[in-house]
Amino acid sequence: MTSPTGVQLAWEAAVNQKPVPLETVPSRAIPARTVRRRAGRPPRALLGPAQITQAALKLVSRDGYKALTMSGLAKSLNVAPSALYNHVGSKQELLLLVEDSLMGRVDVSAFLDQPWEQAVSIWAHSYRNVFSSHLPLIPVIALLPVTNAPQTLLMYEAVTEGFLQAGWPSERIIDAIVALESFIYGSAYDVNAPDDIFAPGDLGGTAPHFTSAVARRSNTDQLNDADGAFSLGLAAMIAGLAATLS
Amino acid sequence: MTSPTGVQLAWEAAVNQKPVPLETVPSRAIPARTVRRRAGRPPRALLGPAQITQAALKLVSRDGYKALTMSGLAKSLNVAPSALYNHVGSKQELLLLVEDSLMGRVDVSAFLDQPWEQAVSIWAHSYRNVFSSHLPLIPVIALLPVTNAPQTLLMYEAVTEGFLQAGWPSERIIDAIVALESFIYGSAYDVNAPDDIFAPGDLGGTAPHFTSAVARRSNTDQLNDADGAFSLGLAAMIAGLAATLS
Repeated sequence: MTSPTGVQLAWEAAVNQKPVPLETVPSRAIPARTVRRRAGRPPRALLGPAQITQAALKLVSRDGYKALTMSGLAKSLNVAPSALYNHVGSKQELLLLVEDSLMGRVDVSAFLDQPWEQAVSIWAHSYRNVFSSHLPLIPVIALLPVTNAPQTLLMYEAVTEGFLQAGWPSERIIDAIVALESFIYGSAYDVNAPDDIFAPGDLGGTAPHFTSAVARRSNTDQLNDADGAFSLGLAAMIAGLAATLS
Repeated sequence: MTSPTGVQLAWEAAVNQKPVPLETVPSRAIPARTVRRRAGRPPRALLGPAQITQAALKLVSRDGYKALTMSGLAKSLNVAPSALYNHVGSKQELLLLVEDSLMGRVDVSAFLDQPWEQAVSIWAHSYRNVFSSHLPLIPVIALLPVTNAPQTLLMYEAVTEGFLQAGWPSERIIDAIVALESFIYGSAYDVNAPDDIFAPGDLGGTAPHFTSAVARRSNTDQLNDADGAFSLGLAAMIAGLAATLS
């Protein structure tokens, strides 16, 4: 399925920051109205993987994951579908580009020089922040194989090396990473929870202890509620995981 | 927005197991073809909240969350939209019914007579299992207020009481529950992850430690990979949370 101008070449171009020239688009593929509307602007000369990925993320943020189709993406880029397919051979390749773009933003640098607990915390905060801005992609990326996604693999390699250096046996590292990721994905949703998510409404009388606990939730000064829950859970999981090593 | 035959009455009917009679449906609202196709079957005489909720869950499981519209649901129930609106006043009320149905399946009984660690574990396993079968609803329910959802509030009340009895200060209970829920939601996704989610493909050479750790992941006999990661993470978080009390 991978064409020679597919995700691999696209990725190399992105890494080398050399956008691939936009193929000549048959004029019939662009509706006349669109051409007229954009006549006063300079033509968009280059179509590269960075542009494609950005447009895909924008599309999903605006209209949800269902809107991410090859034809919809081509339209948002103002190119013919055939031009898009010259760069990305399939929807699956497009998802890999998107996954890789997000995973490439996750900060793993602390695994190089920080103690394991601190490094995991910095990585987890960064990971949550990247995905809390892209919620519609969580259900997709949580189930998407990392196969042939270079930045994603480099992210996992850095984390794995950090675990090994902290004394983790190789065979238990993936379970620990997956457990942390599950917490991170769920916490990314909670960042976007409405303030009144636990308001009991007219039924507070049926849940008096819960209602009281909600009213007394004490994150106020330094942390908002989502950050408070995330900090508590992350610290607990890190401490609990560390304890399994001793 | 709540009509007198809305979610409140619907809920009472569900609790009392007395389905509300199906209102007379104007014959013009049912396409002739549908009537013909079902002519040989006995007419569906009753439409109650349990039926509506079941149909909604089935629709989402089959076609995703986007398919859950009032008109689509009416069609799947083979009734006119007006008949559905007589029972559920809005999409928001429908979501409350769905949320409440799922939360009502979560087992909180262990908080009555088990030690806190054990009760949290039983509750979390049950909660994950309910949602791992209804992934498309996670992004909705993770952000849906519990307001006026009776079973949902009873679930949280039971959990809160269990925390209080274990010595948790009221003001820190909600953060702890939210942290556990975040882990549970993320883990529900992982139950559905494909076996090859960490297969590096042609790029294994760029991530040798990760590739090795994936190959040596050691959940084989008793637990599958998702259960292994969930058990490790849950035990770590429970131990870590318990440690914050002492």
